[in-house]
Amino acid sequence: MTRPTRTQPIPPIEVALGARTYRILITSDDPAPFGPFLRESLDASWAGRACRNALVVADSGSRPHVDPLLPALAAHGIEPRLHIVPAGEPSKSIEQAERLWEALAAMKADRHAAVVAVGGGVIGDLAGFAAATYARGLPLVMVPTTLLAMVDSAVGGKVGINLPQAKNIVGAFHQPAAVWIDTASLATLPVREFRCGLAEVVKYGVILDADFFADLERDVEPILAHDPATLGALIARCCALKAQVVSQDEREESGLRAVLNFGHTIGHAVESVAGYGGRYLHGEAVSIGMVLESTLAERLGWIGPDVTDRISALLQRFGLPTVLDGTEPAMLLEAMTRDKKNQHGAIRFVLPTRLGSVTLTDAASVENVLSVLATRRASPE
Amino acid sequence: MTRPTRTQPIPPIEVALGARTYRILITSDDPAPFGPFLRESLDASWAGRACRNALVVADSGSRPHVDPLLPALAAHGIEPRLHIVPAGEPSKSIEQAERLWEALAAMKADRHAAVVAVGGGVIGDLAGFAAATYARGLPLVMVPTTLLAMVDSAVGGKVGINLPQAKNIVGAFHQPAAVWIDTASLATLPVREFRCGLAEVVKYGVILDADFFADLERDVEPILAHDPATLGALIARCCALKAQVVSQDEREESGLRAVLNFGHTIGHAVESVAGYGGRYLHGEAVSIGMVLESTLAERLGWIGPDVTDRISALLQRFGLPTVLDGTEPAMLLEAMTRDKKNQHGAIRFVLPTRLGSVTLTDAASVENVLSVLATRRASPE
Repeated sequence: MTRPTRTQPIPPIEVALGARTYRILITSDDPAPFGPFLRESLDASWAGRACRNALVVADSGSRPHVDPLLPALAAHGIEPRLHIVPAGEPSKSIEQAERLWEALAAMKADRHAAVVAVGGGVIGDLAGFAAATYARGLPLVMVPTTLLAMVDSAVGGKVGINLPQAKNIVGAFHQPAAVWIDTASLATLPVREFRCGLAEVVKYGVILDADFFADLERDVEPILAHDPATLGALIARCCALKAQVVSQDEREESGLRAVLNFGHTIGHAVESVAGYGGRYLHGEAVSIGMVLESTLAERLGWIGPDVTDRISALLQRFGLPTVLDGTEPAMLLEAMTRDKKNQHGAIRFVLPTRLGSVTLTDAASVENVLSVLATRRASPE
Repeated sequence: MTRPTRTQPIPPIEVALGARTYRILITSDDPAPFGPFLRESLDASWAGRACRNALVVADSGSRPHVDPLLPALAAHGIEPRLHIVPAGEPSKSIEQAERLWEALAAMKADRHAAVVAVGGGVIGDLAGFAAATYARGLPLVMVPTTLLAMVDSAVGGKVGINLPQAKNIVGAFHQPAAVWIDTASLATLPVREFRCGLAEVVKYGVILDADFFADLERDVEPILAHDPATLGALIARCCALKAQVVSQDEREESGLRAVLNFGHTIGHAVESVAGYGGRYLHGEAVSIGMVLESTLAERLGWIGPDVTDRISALLQRFGLPTVLDGTEPAMLLEAMTRDKKNQHGAIRFVLPTRLGSVTLTDAASVENVLSVLATRRASPE
């Protein structure tokens, strides 16, 4: 990982999607480039020509990050209108989507209007869904303010809301016209949420980039100290890796995009069985899921224990849990077999074949899965 | 227009949209080909592989047309579940969309589920919107049962619902995986609704195909008598013409798709000023709009009065109104300037340059428009 200094700007990252190609701008405590970047991105976008006004969506947590945006929009000919959503997952609802549609109707939004989503995954998913469906698609600008949103949900075009019956079940693929990441937003992020973002960062190393994984091992201290240059380079690397996957499989059709699910098959089960009571956040469940799925790859003879040990050690240094306590393997297995991604009963996993490479497989037996779920792996240190 | 006999099947019409290419099957009182066509279309579709179950959406009016579908679905490995929506435009609501999402969740719909919309424009738009947004897009099968839906709304991928503030404002572009048209459905259609569909049929002749227009002039009697072979050929021609436009401008980006708006600029104004009280249905307002917009093209010197006379005479033979009575030109003008398709104040029209060809223009002056709106053109006969 090269380490740009604070004054060395990071070149915008391109997500190559033909007519829907867009760029990700990463800055550090410097909102000046945002206005010109936005104007240029909207003018170049398939949908954003002659943008005249924008609905800026935030929640109470991300509200402070909106302040530098409003004058930047106005200075570039885009009249902003602010819409505040209650913070938290319950806002990914039909009711809140309806309020956004009404706000867009109230500002007489037409094809010259954009939606700017400032916040974490909830705001990006909700505002992105409103943008995807209003007037059959308004240009969407993502301004993620959490690490998880920066490296994951803001890039890739998945937007949506929850039903009481299922999370993220109502939604669309709607690529943003531009993404702006200011790493300074992370200064106010609660440490537990920052660590959860790091779980997804580690995932990129395991699934796609062994060199990046080694860089993370080297840079644990500057990362935890929020060194701006290190964080900027780290986020840029994750965005570039996600951009590469999304470019190859925009709508999850070829199976290629499934590599991003490493750690998530077991992670989702951990979350649904033990997590919704607040015991594990998403990133924590994924951290445990990655270690257990790597252990499963060992059982299949795909990797040696050294890979799992390195993954587990790095996650622990980032303050993430790697061992599951007190959840019945049978309950986790049942949650996994309910997962919508399974076909014909076999549980589908994305497992490492070495550090930096994964494969989609139906080959894990129920016995192997149950035995791995019962593992109480000792810390490698 | 060639006239296939009842036993001569019409070859399926292809809507060429790359990976989203789909076919339109037209039959006459013969549901037998539907099952194999559906299975084949879903298997070939980007989204429909291994389809196992389907939500079949209808209203009280289209309910009888569902009966032959359910066994055809079951016989081809697709378990159907019926969902009945109240008849009428108010069903294009967030509330009804939510009920459809809940029905899909209740049947545990995943990527192996499809939505089958059986009915007129309201059912197609509503069920299509649910299909577009559930699990980020389920395959959609359109089974239009009104003439307007057969020749217009079922082909082209526009789906959506209304807000109290604006019609069709929440929606998406979501191409169907297949369209099945049984011309026998038209037997039970109220005559006024059938005529409204004919207004859009005439439109295709004016904007794209002078030969087709002449065929319509020749075939007025068999059309009004619901001759199956004539209706089948007519619907096939309209679908092929719409397919050609949609293939070239799927998401209304190039302006090409705007040709379909001939008659609709004034038509929408007539509808919104005089129509919502029930005085004019959509097709009736479009009929008046086409005659007035053709008159406007005369004023600009683009065409002679012969073109308008032929359009007006054909519409009258189909029992459609062509003269506007008792609506203030100033009110219509105001409604038009509110239209979202206008840019920078000028009213945008699609006007004929000859029979079979139209051009998008901002060239009409307010004076010309007002003078045309005040026209009480005499019947050419």
